[in-house]
Amino acid sequence: MISFGDRLRSVVDAHGRLCLGLDPHDSLLQQWGLESTAEGARSLAMTALEAAHGRVGIVKPQAAFFERFGAAGYAVLEEVISTARAAGLLVIADVKRGDIGSTAAAYGEAWLAPGSPLESDAMTAVAYQGLGSLDPVIALATQHGKGVFVLTSTSNPEGRDLQQSVSGSGRSVAGQLARDVAVRNAGASGWGSIGVVIGATESITASGIDPVLLQHTPVLGPGFGYQGSRLSDLASVYGVASGSVIPTVTRSVLSAGPAGLAAALDEHRAELESA
Amino acid sequence: MISFGDRLRSVVDAHGRLCLGLDPHDSLLQQWGLESTAEGARSLAMTALEAAHGRVGIVKPQAAFFERFGAAGYAVLEEVISTARAAGLLVIADVKRGDIGSTAAAYGEAWLAPGSPLESDAMTAVAYQGLGSLDPVIALATQHGKGVFVLTSTSNPEGRDLQQSVSGSGRSVAGQLARDVAVRNAGASGWGSIGVVIGATESITASGIDPVLLQHTPVLGPGFGYQGSRLSDLASVYGVASGSVIPTVTRSVLSAGPAGLAAALDEHRAELESA
Repeated sequence: MISFGDRLRSVVDAHGRLCLGLDPHDSLLQQWGLESTAEGARSLAMTALEAAHGRVGIVKPQAAFFERFGAAGYAVLEEVISTARAAGLLVIADVKRGDIGSTAAAYGEAWLAPGSPLESDAMTAVAYQGLGSLDPVIALATQHGKGVFVLTSTSNPEGRDLQQSVSGSGRSVAGQLARDVAVRNAGASGWGSIGVVIGATESITASGIDPVLLQHTPVLGPGFGYQGSRLSDLASVYGVASGSVIPTVTRSVLSAGPAGLAAALDEHRAELESA
Repeated sequence: MISFGDRLRSVVDAHGRLCLGLDPHDSLLQQWGLESTAEGARSLAMTALEAAHGRVGIVKPQAAFFERFGAAGYAVLEEVISTARAAGLLVIADVKRGDIGSTAAAYGEAWLAPGSPLESDAMTAVAYQGLGSLDPVIALATQHGKGVFVLTSTSNPEGRDLQQSVSGSGRSVAGQLARDVAVRNAGASGWGSIGVVIGATESITASGIDPVLLQHTPVLGPGFGYQGSRLSDLASVYGVASGSVIPTVTRSVLSAGPAGLAAALDEHRAELESA
């Protein structure tokens, strides 16, 4: 069994580390001339997958934009995920799930268990109930060569008060969580399989996160392009952790429309390479 | 438009405040002699709804146990939710969703928008990205007479370090969140429409939550019966906020099996009434 961390590294070595977000939200559907339906979301996502093929190695569908269409939206999401995986793309399901005990295990089962209709390569998770509450998800991921990215520090200003609260250790909530995740990756020769999600709008040290800890921890970095940060800012935002960052672009690519997708992706890849 | 807080009050006045959780997890399915499939989950949930009818006014399906069956599980969840609502039961979708901006809005749309396939009366949400990140969900809820219960303090020990971290105000993360929610309910004559989820295993003052603040804030209290607290402990756990608590029982009822459900519910109701 190859670990998720090693699979992620292989994909990055082969295709670069840019990740394309798949967010069929209403303003994009409208711009693309598509209906706000499960079928519209399918059309946008499938077209994006075609442009992604050969240009990026990782895609990140955002579950919320499919869930709003109920079972019909989930049928489309199943198809999007399996099509992407069949094409060799690594799929990170952006679901931000979190709970405890058997409920947490059920979320892990939904998104990571081999043979599950929504089986992805990794999922994002929320640890408001403590990183330990995600143990059933992490155990399932490790068992099956899957990954979990734990929401740690986010780019939205409303998140600052909570994420900067001071935990018993004296570290910020975000800093403590990043450290706890890094501890779980200790001993990995390359990347471990438990990652963090750290938004890209300010230096991560301002969030109380020690970037030195993240050498073996993959960092999913949303918010490039659209939310204000540029791919050329990678080093100033993530410091010595920059080498572990999987930067994600979504709206700055998707808003180029079906005809402009490929060029927008190429442009972002070039910007990342020259960074 | 009747607000969710007022609807919740009417239901509680008519049927009492006990809430039945609908968690078709594997060990229960097995105990009931059901397959671990979407159809098995349907059978358990539908049987539980029949027992709930006339005995409780509120049910809380746990999305994770349906999501693990993908689109097929969501089709069942749609049916469970609409059947419950058609029978006059108030449905709180236990989904613990959270995100920012248009993604948060999409989650609100999925679970609260009138006409959505998964339309419920309220949903649970997570505020790791700050209560303000849930504003699009709260706005949608308020507009349509729906409710949002924000995960505040949970019963699992792994959650303590994060939830007890000290925010800029000097309050604990949990205490600050409870207060921020209460502020949003200020001015409600009865219950407001934004609630909190507070687990029932210790006194809530130990979590830094001031129960006096919660007079107009509905409190969803999971963990009764199975996770260690008894309904007779309500006053000692929630103090002066006890009157705002919607206690939820799940496994202690569902584990009674199809034949014992009604009696188990009656027993819990009697225990609650004598508390």
